[in-house]
Amino acid sequence: MAADSRTNAGVDHISTYNKLFDFSVPGERALVLCTAGNLSTTQSLVIAIQQDLKHQRDPNLHVLPTLYECARYIGEKARAIQDRDREWLKRDGIDGQCTLLLGGQLPEGDPELFLIYPQGNCIQATPETPFLQIGEIKYGKPILDRTLSFETTLDAAAKCALLSIDSTMKSNISVGPPIDLVLIKAHTFRISHRLRLKRGDPYLEEMRRSWEHSLKQAFEHLPTLTWQGD
Amino acid sequence: MAADSRTNAGVDHISTYNKLFDFSVPGERALVLCTAGNLSTTQSLVIAIQQDLKHQRDPNLHVLPTLYECARYIGEKARAIQDRDREWLKRDGIDGQCTLLLGGQLPEGDPELFLIYPQGNCIQATPETPFLQIGEIKYGKPILDRTLSFETTLDAAAKCALLSIDSTMKSNISVGPPIDLVLIKAHTFRISHRLRLKRGDPYLEEMRRSWEHSLKQAFEHLPTLTWQGD
Repeated sequence: MAADSRTNAGVDHISTYNKLFDFSVPGERALVLCTAGNLSTTQSLVIAIQQDLKHQRDPNLHVLPTLYECARYIGEKARAIQDRDREWLKRDGIDGQCTLLLGGQLPEGDPELFLIYPQGNCIQATPETPFLQIGEIKYGKPILDRTLSFETTLDAAAKCALLSIDSTMKSNISVGPPIDLVLIKAHTFRISHRLRLKRGDPYLEEMRRSWEHSLKQAFEHLPTLTWQGD
Repeated sequence: MAADSRTNAGVDHISTYNKLFDFSVPGERALVLCTAGNLSTTQSLVIAIQQDLKHQRDPNLHVLPTLYECARYIGEKARAIQDRDREWLKRDGIDGQCTLLLGGQLPEGDPELFLIYPQGNCIQATPETPFLQIGEIKYGKPILDRTLSFETTLDAAAKCALLSIDSTMKSNISVGPPIDLVLIKAHTFRISHRLRLKRGDPYLEEMRRSWEHSLKQAFEHLPTLTWQGD
């Protein structure tokens, strides 16, 4: 799972916030949440989830038996938080919605990935649709469509995710560094690897240089256009 | 200038319409309009422009002295057409807006490219921002950002445009073939070349094969990720 760190409320309000939240119990359950949308809503949501854990309220993310139920639980929380501010935000034309990804693995299940809609319902990644995106998704989708499949190795998938976010950063100023990346290996029930790539990070620079060089070559190798009437 | 041909009003209403309109007087003035947005609005607009030409009303696209004035004239027409239907469309939550590109060259000017906003005002391409996009723009922007500059040759720019639309078609079903492409050489005052690429067109297939092969190779050449703690 990968995310940028830029939040904006217009060009005068650009700031950096972490969008990946780890709720894992290492060795027992891997649970990572990725957030997009209204920052006040997503921060309130993370606080609400943390409070349930701290006070051991039932349900919470450490007692629910399946990742699906965790996703539905988070969806319910997101509904309640959006409902609390909806009328006030609406008056000023502000969108209070949030969209979320929940990935991980619980003892009784396979590794799974859910997308939780602003409406609180959710969908799941499948072999036919092996990746899910939230937030500013369009710029980075073509790279994923052309490089990712269910058979892609975990390390290659991590590179795909970085490339996709890097392409988005180049085309849209609402997406910006640092990029956070976490990797969960099946049946380890913990975050196996994590990476934070800041602006100017040598790997990011090298990846971008390599990709741009290759794209230029790819472009030069395109077949010659024959115009009608030529 | 390049465009796909798909129009949709929901998944039950997908159809094929030309989005490039040639208003040139060959040898005297080159004028090509590209449309995006509500189909009823853009068709009404093209009819209105044609009627002014047919009845030699003043102003019209064949008497206005600069491309900027042509763009403002089209913007005024688009405003009037949107105003006529606005209240009725608004009641049913339908977006009647249109966005347009106007490219070409008039005897007294350089080759120019304008983007006309739904509000009727316009902006122009410049050496720093040598391309303009309308419609479903995000999927195809990263390729343009990475391959196009003001120094790009016309033939290479045509390939960029095709690649950009092909990438968008792969990632979004609201964009579909045939792809129309026209090329205007400076100081010829006419469309120099035109091309219509239907689904399965051999060039399109070959271009896509070449591009996908190169991207896979580019991906394999990316530097190896080193995880923190490795």
